[in-house]
Amino acid sequence: MSKLRFTISMSLDGYVAGPNQSLENPLGEGGEQMHDWVVKLKFFREMHGDSGGGETGIDDDVLRESFDNISATIMGRNMFGGGPGDWGDRSWKGWWGDDPPYHHQVFVLTHHTREPLDMDGGTTFFFVTDGIESALRQANDAAGSKDVWLAGGARAAQQYLAAGLVDEMELHVVPLLLGGGERLLDNLDSNVKLEPIRALEGRGVTHLKYRVIKT
Amino acid sequence: MSKLRFTISMSLDGYVAGPNQSLENPLGEGGEQMHDWVVKLKFFREMHGDSGGGETGIDDDVLRESFDNISATIMGRNMFGGGPGDWGDRSWKGWWGDDPPYHHQVFVLTHHTREPLDMDGGTTFFFVTDGIESALRQANDAAGSKDVWLAGGARAAQQYLAAGLVDEMELHVVPLLLGGGERLLDNLDSNVKLEPIRALEGRGVTHLKYRVIKT
Repeated sequence: MSKLRFTISMSLDGYVAGPNQSLENPLGEGGEQMHDWVVKLKFFREMHGDSGGGETGIDDDVLRESFDNISATIMGRNMFGGGPGDWGDRSWKGWWGDDPPYHHQVFVLTHHTREPLDMDGGTTFFFVTDGIESALRQANDAAGSKDVWLAGGARAAQQYLAAGLVDEMELHVVPLLLGGGERLLDNLDSNVKLEPIRALEGRGVTHLKYRVIKT
Repeated sequence: MSKLRFTISMSLDGYVAGPNQSLENPLGEGGEQMHDWVVKLKFFREMHGDSGGGETGIDDDVLRESFDNISATIMGRNMFGGGPGDWGDRSWKGWWGDDPPYHHQVFVLTHHTREPLDMDGGTTFFFVTDGIESALRQANDAAGSKDVWLAGGARAAQQYLAAGLVDEMELHVVPLLLGGGERLLDNLDSNVKLEPIRALEGRGVTHLKYRVIKT
């Protein structure tokens, strides 16, 4: 049975993007600092085609584990990018260049239809307009016996958490106060039941992993 | 040099009190669940005069350490209780009965003057009307070479954090979404610089300790 595994970097005050998000600055002011811990890691570099160098250690192990056994991805429209509304001339192909680091099928939640987009390296983006459950069914089919990664952003995660569809949630908590922006754990309540799996202290980031209890 | 050490229990969505706080329900709806981890501990029972029983282990160690070397306390008016406004007939003497678990001088931030209140067991409440820096000076004097505990609530903590007066912050993160109430890390921004000291996984609670960097 495939699991839906959600992992994301979050500031200590609960934001996954800083204030004043824009097309030029999709992570908002200060938001890029939330990923400082990840871009220097060996596994991150490997994912982006650079096999030499990068830091190893606990953070690299955690990042590596979070993608282990993952064979499909779901993300919200904002995370794919290209602005709101219809897809226009289709020139927007995501933030990740010609060879995105997924190398599997990626399901983008959107209200606007678009034909699937084949990229280099085995990544295909599918644009799902009939809701989160449909996207999860399609991702589960694509993943086979492996798991599905819920990549974010906040609103997609809130919808899947509220619907009781997430199995595991890992928050990479960065010791930073952003003071505004997009808060991950908003619009949710005590109906979402969590059980801690572990807490790991990395280099300037704390990894908190939870099981989401199905009620 | 005395340190100002802030510790508090917080839900994973960042609340230190639940929604709909009232005089009858000062922790708000669901808020009391944030203290489930603590009331069963051996050290908590000892603090409240019950020397027999209680759980030991990592949570007990953390709680014990968080009060080690503490010799004075600061808290906001809401934490002392008795409702807003002037002190009326002085019949309100806090939530803790005749023998509060502090056993040292406690400085309550308020806009309303009141004479000091001597309780059993060595606790005296002082009511400080001239601001957070004055309360800290008085608490430092009372603590001598030992440290001062900042007990909360959210607004008192925000003021001390914003003023750069906190040395250490320990959040006991409970795997619970309250969905509303009083959020701890609000009204703050990236001027508050934090450095992780440690993350410890207890029984149903995660202890995150930070050094607050003075800039």
